[in-house]
Amino acid sequence: MLIKIVDYNKADVIIKNNFSEEWSELEPILLNMPLYVKESQQKGKDNQLTFDPIGTNKHLGDELTKKNWCQNISIPKKFSALGTDIDFGKNHIVLESQFSNYPFLSNNILRSEIMFRAHQNIDKIGEIKLLIILTKDHAIPSANSSLYCQQARNQVKYSELIFKLPIRLISLNCKKNEKIKAVKNNYKGRYSRDLINDEKINCELIIKENRKTGQIKIH
Amino acid sequence: MLIKIVDYNKADVIIKNNFSEEWSELEPILLNMPLYVKESQQKGKDNQLTFDPIGTNKHLGDELTKKNWCQNISIPKKFSALGTDIDFGKNHIVLESQFSNYPFLSNNILRSEIMFRAHQNIDKIGEIKLLIILTKDHAIPSANSSLYCQQARNQVKYSELIFKLPIRLISLNCKKNEKIKAVKNNYKGRYSRDLINDEKINCELIIKENRKTGQIKIH
Repeated sequence: MLIKIVDYNKADVIIKNNFSEEWSELEPILLNMPLYVKESQQKGKDNQLTFDPIGTNKHLGDELTKKNWCQNISIPKKFSALGTDIDFGKNHIVLESQFSNYPFLSNNILRSEIMFRAHQNIDKIGEIKLLIILTKDHAIPSANSSLYCQQARNQVKYSELIFKLPIRLISLNCKKNEKIKAVKNNYKGRYSRDLINDEKINCELIIKENRKTGQIKIH
Repeated sequence: MLIKIVDYNKADVIIKNNFSEEWSELEPILLNMPLYVKESQQKGKDNQLTFDPIGTNKHLGDELTKKNWCQNISIPKKFSALGTDIDFGKNHIVLESQFSNYPFLSNNILRSEIMFRAHQNIDKIGEIKLLIILTKDHAIPSANSSLYCQQARNQVKYSELIFKLPIRLISLNCKKNEKIKAVKNNYKGRYSRDLINDEKINCELIIKENRKTGQIKIH
């Protein structure tokens, strides 16, 4: 996929100086990732192909663990009111994959900042020194009300006035109007994580004039 | 209902000095409010009576507007990435009724703090000077994963290290093991807000030994 980066609180400097190895592991995983799609069963989107967060997260987990990143890292009990676990992490880096509703991003940022300031030791990663947030671009059709990167950027921009933790915000996107590699996952039901099958497909993200969000058509 | 209060960032002093009138309007509304319940249709809770956030919020809206509080106040466009509207407000006070999942509380606190620091003028209420958050106690059976006050207190306690906005956190509770006034709302479907009918009932909150959460039985 394509990626676009915005850094806050000097995340660029910190990555360059301290986490260039981890970034060199993460970046190609994102660039080489196919677009995961599923048929939407939401009202008004019947059977349209939309972004598949479950497939995307599964792919990320499989690839990151090959590079010794950890997955589903428990939040220490002291801070359990802020959530149960962190999506991914390695060597002082928290990586949150945020394709859900916008309040979950507020929570990701807030809890990371609180643990950062508390110098909280976290199992498998140690103290947090960098937060990487992964979102998707508005251009990719997705579940209703799910967070997209333009909204995330605004949230983080204002949070930066309060927070001190370095944050790298990544948005995933696709090339427009040309053939792209995708995987179409078929699940048992609307809210199911049980996969019936997956198909490698070629598709195209078509964006009509004056529209922010495109349509995914099988090529 | 019963209420329990915890104040952060000197909310008690600020209310005493500046917002005693508004508090004297809000407090009796909460104390005189019946417990709103509905039959749960969640797995594992089939037909059990659980806390009804829709009925509770409707009651609060009806009573607060009688005292010239405003409802569903638009968040200024500049901060729209942080949400669309504020539940209730009056005279520099934001009142958020938070019976949803825990990340929504992070978002309520974060967006209020950001607008507080920015001295943002908000339609109908002006600059935010106080945030009041309404939650429910763990004792009241509720929808799976919905926020309860003990969790909220821990979230706010840690947020206080970062935030400057005065916050009053209120938890709603019921007397245990005695007759209480309630309203049972029947909705068209699991996710529906369409009311079929409402019944005034008497019920009882029964809490077994060593359990945090009770059961609501019709009296």
